[in-house]
Amino acid sequence: MANKLRGNAVVGQSGGPTAVINQSLVGVVFEASKHPQIENIYGARHGVKGILGEDFVDLKRESIGDLEAVANTPASALGSVRQKPTTEECARIFEIFRKHDVRYFFYIGGNDSAEAASIINDLAKDAEYEFRTFHVPKTIDNDLLVSDHTPGFGSAARFIALATMGDDCDNRSLPGIKVNILMGRKAGFLTAATMLARQHDDDGPHLVYPPECTFSLDKFLGSVAAVYQKLGRCLVCVGEGVAEKIPEIKLQEKDSHGNVQLSGSGFFGDFLANQIKAKLGAKRVRADTYGYLQRSFAGCVSEVDAFEARRVGEFAVRWAVAENVDGSVAIRRLGDGKDYAVDFVSTPLETVARNTKSMPADWLVSEQSDISEKFRTYALPLVGELPRQGRLAAYPIKKK
Amino acid sequence: MANKLRGNAVVGQSGGPTAVINQSLVGVVFEASKHPQIENIYGARHGVKGILGEDFVDLKRESIGDLEAVANTPASALGSVRQKPTTEECARIFEIFRKHDVRYFFYIGGNDSAEAASIINDLAKDAEYEFRTFHVPKTIDNDLLVSDHTPGFGSAARFIALATMGDDCDNRSLPGIKVNILMGRKAGFLTAATMLARQHDDDGPHLVYPPECTFSLDKFLGSVAAVYQKLGRCLVCVGEGVAEKIPEIKLQEKDSHGNVQLSGSGFFGDFLANQIKAKLGAKRVRADTYGYLQRSFAGCVSEVDAFEARRVGEFAVRWAVAENVDGSVAIRRLGDGKDYAVDFVSTPLETVARNTKSMPADWLVSEQSDISEKFRTYALPLVGELPRQGRLAAYPIKKK
Repeated sequence: MANKLRGNAVVGQSGGPTAVINQSLVGVVFEASKHPQIENIYGARHGVKGILGEDFVDLKRESIGDLEAVANTPASALGSVRQKPTTEECARIFEIFRKHDVRYFFYIGGNDSAEAASIINDLAKDAEYEFRTFHVPKTIDNDLLVSDHTPGFGSAARFIALATMGDDCDNRSLPGIKVNILMGRKAGFLTAATMLARQHDDDGPHLVYPPECTFSLDKFLGSVAAVYQKLGRCLVCVGEGVAEKIPEIKLQEKDSHGNVQLSGSGFFGDFLANQIKAKLGAKRVRADTYGYLQRSFAGCVSEVDAFEARRVGEFAVRWAVAENVDGSVAIRRLGDGKDYAVDFVSTPLETVARNTKSMPADWLVSEQSDISEKFRTYALPLVGELPRQGRLAAYPIKKK
Repeated sequence: MANKLRGNAVVGQSGGPTAVINQSLVGVVFEASKHPQIENIYGARHGVKGILGEDFVDLKRESIGDLEAVANTPASALGSVRQKPTTEECARIFEIFRKHDVRYFFYIGGNDSAEAASIINDLAKDAEYEFRTFHVPKTIDNDLLVSDHTPGFGSAARFIALATMGDDCDNRSLPGIKVNILMGRKAGFLTAATMLARQHDDDGPHLVYPPECTFSLDKFLGSVAAVYQKLGRCLVCVGEGVAEKIPEIKLQEKDSHGNVQLSGSGFFGDFLANQIKAKLGAKRVRADTYGYLQRSFAGCVSEVDAFEARRVGEFAVRWAVAENVDGSVAIRRLGDGKDYAVDFVSTPLETVARNTKSMPADWLVSEQSDISEKFRTYALPLVGELPRQGRLAAYPIKKK
């Protein structure tokens, strides 16, 4: 049903940035420019915080060249925020939307952002304010419900695969035990992406612990010792969320969604490295925390990811305007999985708000502290082709 | 003077890996294959450790395709080592070289590796064993004497520039105070490379502390507070070597060259972040340690760096065989600096062994805790073109 609702649109970005979140922003702006129902396109700076502060910018005045450059730039060009608006704040948001004749609201973010959009949308209904809200999905964690995968994940997973590939070569050069900490509080998709680094039989990572695994420090140390004994080195990749399963570790800082602060600190990697040093007596033990580089590295973008991020922005506008519905954009994978193909569908806001998903249980190979090859089949099309890692055939010379 | 010395060649890799150290290896192998004076090309696994263990591989049997793939793979394909051979070990090395009729030794590494090569070469002279040694320079630290710059630096600096670019966008999206720790114990070239991330006036890094700076924790906190006050955010980049200037920090583990272990741990970043939290009361304070990703990330290579790394390997062989000299390869920059051009010259081993260089004093802008634009002129040709970071013009909408 074509939509007669005319007015201005607001677009905002929320939650942790990604390498392609600006593709979605630009998708929203370009698509919105095509529809006469949308007069002005306002960008809210720092998401709901910008709406509350009436801090809007005029996105229709931006040049197409600048917008394309922004699309290829990591992190949220409008600024982001981690804020769940209170009922009072939502009331204030309507006041501002009414004043500015805002009839379309597009919120780019993860499940927390979908929740914020959903709250605002519900209040609009209660207030009988005619209004369309669409959530535009993004999250490197890949933990949104309904969708096969989420824009932002492919590029982050690509960074992680490349970093782990190089780090495994590094660890082979100067053998020792290396612990890498990956983003992901609850969902292990990013941790699992480390397994994409493997091309030869003894390539690392040799042990992979996503947050979904059952974790015991003793068993962990035993597994590390066994690999180290066998290969003379060991590359272990651990999701940051595993820290919450270790009673000795205290976590404090929380954001307004109740999420514990795990990133932006090297403590968990150092904790595990120190345990390995102390209990296994291994000499060369190092830890790296990939940190914010995973989501914002400039110049490591999966092409598929960038394309899909643009498309979800476009579809959100198209459905809100042409179909006159609220919701979120989901990506469905088509076919038998051999050839990669997707389509985009709309899904009600409440289906993606709040709750998140974990990796399918059968992608974990718990007894080997590893990830199933099913993950590779799933993730590789999202990540794109990876460079072949060369290795010497290394024909030995006889000792004399 | 053409060289009549015929026999086998040994090539080894030593010290910290780089993204292009295998280019030098392949440069040695390809060039050595052209000279009839070199019969076999043996690769020593893990540098002097492999020589001592007679652990050689036959590099002439490798396929050209595999070698080219190895050249494009980060870290040391032969394996690396951090070991300064003792006098006894050097005696054992000759014994093995004699047995295998080794007359050419190429050692790819930094100043520590040049020192090891120099020790072996001196003992060869004392033993009147006719023998040519060439050191092939590599180090991400860029701290070798004589050379304008060192293969490995350009790619590491490129990684750092891209990471910092993205991280600055991330910090702008979710404002706070961010501390990044960069590799480099004494030389600040890698820390300085963070300044290449700047494209707009208020882009970070806002404060840069290479190891050469004078550092006071109080002044540091004052500077961070001032930037945070002004911009509402602050991106600070600190060389890991600065940790040695802070009395509160105890550093323990040392390698056999007496170098303190600083990498492979997040402690220094966390220390600074905790100081900022405690003393400035700032809320969102995060730290990342770029760690080993700086030297081994797969798929972030400067073209100039890869090319020059190949060339220094080739020149080492050419000079040893055709010119019959020992030494190391140095890169000289030519012209007025406007157009990038270099040539390669040979320099005696002792000129690059042991000692290292720091950044020129006038590249530090100490009063602003910053790096001079002179560094950009110097480093940009080595790093290659960087992606343009887009930014919204952000025309404000009037509040109503």
